[in-house]
Amino acid sequence: MPQVSHRGEEMPASPIRRLVPLADKAVARGIKVYRLNIGQPDVPTPPEAFEALKKIDRKVLEYSPSAGLLSLRQKLCEYYRRFHIDVEADDVIITTGGSEAVLFAFMSCLDPGDEIIVPEPSYANYMAFAISAGAKIVTVPSTIDDGFELPPVEKFEALISPRTKGILICNPNNPTGYLYTMKEMLQIRDLVKRHDLFLFSDEVYREFCYTGAPYISALHLPGIENNVVLIDSVSKRYNECGIRVGALITKNAALRKCVMKFCQARLSPPLVGQIVAEASIDASPDYMLATYNEYVERRKFLVDRINRIPGCYTPIPMGAFYTVVRLPVDDADDFCRWCLEEFDYEGQTVFMAPASGFYTTPGLGRDEVRIAYVLNREELGRAMTVLEHALAAYAELHPRI
Amino acid sequence: MPQVSHRGEEMPASPIRRLVPLADKAVARGIKVYRLNIGQPDVPTPPEAFEALKKIDRKVLEYSPSAGLLSLRQKLCEYYRRFHIDVEADDVIITTGGSEAVLFAFMSCLDPGDEIIVPEPSYANYMAFAISAGAKIVTVPSTIDDGFELPPVEKFEALISPRTKGILICNPNNPTGYLYTMKEMLQIRDLVKRHDLFLFSDEVYREFCYTGAPYISALHLPGIENNVVLIDSVSKRYNECGIRVGALITKNAALRKCVMKFCQARLSPPLVGQIVAEASIDASPDYMLATYNEYVERRKFLVDRINRIPGCYTPIPMGAFYTVVRLPVDDADDFCRWCLEEFDYEGQTVFMAPASGFYTTPGLGRDEVRIAYVLNREELGRAMTVLEHALAAYAELHPRI
Repeated sequence: MPQVSHRGEEMPASPIRRLVPLADKAVARGIKVYRLNIGQPDVPTPPEAFEALKKIDRKVLEYSPSAGLLSLRQKLCEYYRRFHIDVEADDVIITTGGSEAVLFAFMSCLDPGDEIIVPEPSYANYMAFAISAGAKIVTVPSTIDDGFELPPVEKFEALISPRTKGILICNPNNPTGYLYTMKEMLQIRDLVKRHDLFLFSDEVYREFCYTGAPYISALHLPGIENNVVLIDSVSKRYNECGIRVGALITKNAALRKCVMKFCQARLSPPLVGQIVAEASIDASPDYMLATYNEYVERRKFLVDRINRIPGCYTPIPMGAFYTVVRLPVDDADDFCRWCLEEFDYEGQTVFMAPASGFYTTPGLGRDEVRIAYVLNREELGRAMTVLEHALAAYAELHPRI
Repeated sequence: MPQVSHRGEEMPASPIRRLVPLADKAVARGIKVYRLNIGQPDVPTPPEAFEALKKIDRKVLEYSPSAGLLSLRQKLCEYYRRFHIDVEADDVIITTGGSEAVLFAFMSCLDPGDEIIVPEPSYANYMAFAISAGAKIVTVPSTIDDGFELPPVEKFEALISPRTKGILICNPNNPTGYLYTMKEMLQIRDLVKRHDLFLFSDEVYREFCYTGAPYISALHLPGIENNVVLIDSVSKRYNECGIRVGALITKNAALRKCVMKFCQARLSPPLVGQIVAEASIDASPDYMLATYNEYVERRKFLVDRINRIPGCYTPIPMGAFYTVVRLPVDDADDFCRWCLEEFDYEGQTVFMAPASGFYTTPGLGRDEVRIAYVLNREELGRAMTVLEHALAAYAELHPRI
């Protein structure tokens, strides 16, 4: 039997994914599982999206252009202008979700052995896409005690090698909810400029900034226009993760030409998804505000509730819909597993993402989990009650020294 | 300005793609362009597909499971059984088009420097996916004079090196329309077994076999169950190329586990596309037969017409909806460009794919083009009239010695 590739063996099997079958088994045992593990919101998709689906009047569901529908690319430009991001349709390449945008960015910018520097904790799948491209992710730890702010720029400088080709940030951040300040963004800008690096900036959560502090896009930063590769997706902002429509945006024409070769090889992004995405950009201000307000309330409610549980701590996230929580346990991987396999409180349990999957430095985040506030407040409240009981029961079984 | 990757520079820019802007310019000049260049059929998508779209009754267009919807995977198994392909839902992984199935197969089976042997001419994007995986495609030429039958197995044997990890076939074949015989498939089986290789078998055109000769799936071949990676797509058989739903099918559990890591990294194949694909499998026998009959007629009509043009020759394709044609020109790349840029006959011209893009051995196929019979007979007839006039006019300008 022929063997799989070394690359395939290296690909991380996320600790969250490993827990999914345990959650399914808990459900099969009749237990109510509060799924706080992934960014799959319960908020409805806008009605404009469904209307567009029903109105599709074509004889053939044909390939779209490899770069995506021009009308969608133009509409996205209008959308970006609301955030003072000044791009033309030519700068926008539609991808099959933000995932493909990251993959094509890495494939186009990084050769095997090249390195990118990423603050950790970070979105686990960046690692998978880097392995796909044969590239190496080098991490700079940020810490829960510092609220996950940008680590000192000297720590980035210290990691720069002849193979360093880029910096990657996610802003607002998944998993931490951190929103980079203007000062931090300018530090990143200077670093990128000094070493002529690519700046991969994943900004899919831009709609979800809660503190009044401004959202600073990498494309707002003067002087590095040809270095910035912006990653976007409609998944989160219109609650349509399943349509798989994202975008790679760059002012760097040579890079776009290269990315387009990868786009042409896979022929076309999803046509129906693009029709839905284009309609969703017309989602009413009321819809957008209701979604936003829902997350604002959930965030406040959740963070308040978590910080009242003895031994728990989370900084208040400034954006996105995740927060990293320090728990009074030594091994959050085991605790998350135990919640699904061995525990229930009145027939309920919680499914959280062990934070170890978001760190690459061994040992970091062992007492942390990521919680996605993608359930309504009532469910979040019940989930936190369950968590509190789970921690108490686990502490009796696993006394800490 | 940071530079793109070497991999990106290596990615082929297909000669077909380079001609697309010329075709668009011809249209802008008011010229009717017969597009015989790509496999984008004009045949309608089945009504079941559109009904499924209109019936979508969900609040959220959420992620599907990374392996695809279980109901679709089960339904595909029923479909495969019609072709005596005996697989379980667990053997089927849904991908974003057949394209992603090829990419994930290569990523999972091939490391940088590994080689696969492919009969040429072959589908140009295999090369792009191989470059993405850092792997090398080694080709064995088949020839128009032999009707593109499988080259002698000794030619494959001669190319096997310690880095050879697989053989790739497309059956029925794009671009040649060749359908491998049982004898040929058994030769491939023996080769794969002798050297313990992967057999990547792209069978997306299985519905389109015209000669009464049987379609032999790689999964029909006994003794290499763990070697076969079948590539499938609903794009061609239901004329829904834009929904981006394909599948990677293998009995090799270790390989599936590896492929799933790539699937999980990109989260989900398109949800709406999967709903459409599942409904399309219920397309009526009348629809399937009408589509089939349409291609049968077009094929007969086209091949007959081509072979009456002085100096032209094409073998009769046994499957798919392409045929490779030898033209009385020295440089089909230039002829195809010239048709779009400098020629029209009564305000019409033809867009064909230069065959050079399907060969990797330099110099092969220089006098060949691929024609996709994706237009109706009336248009095909007019296109052939235009081609005949174009060849005559081109010969006057470019006399052959």
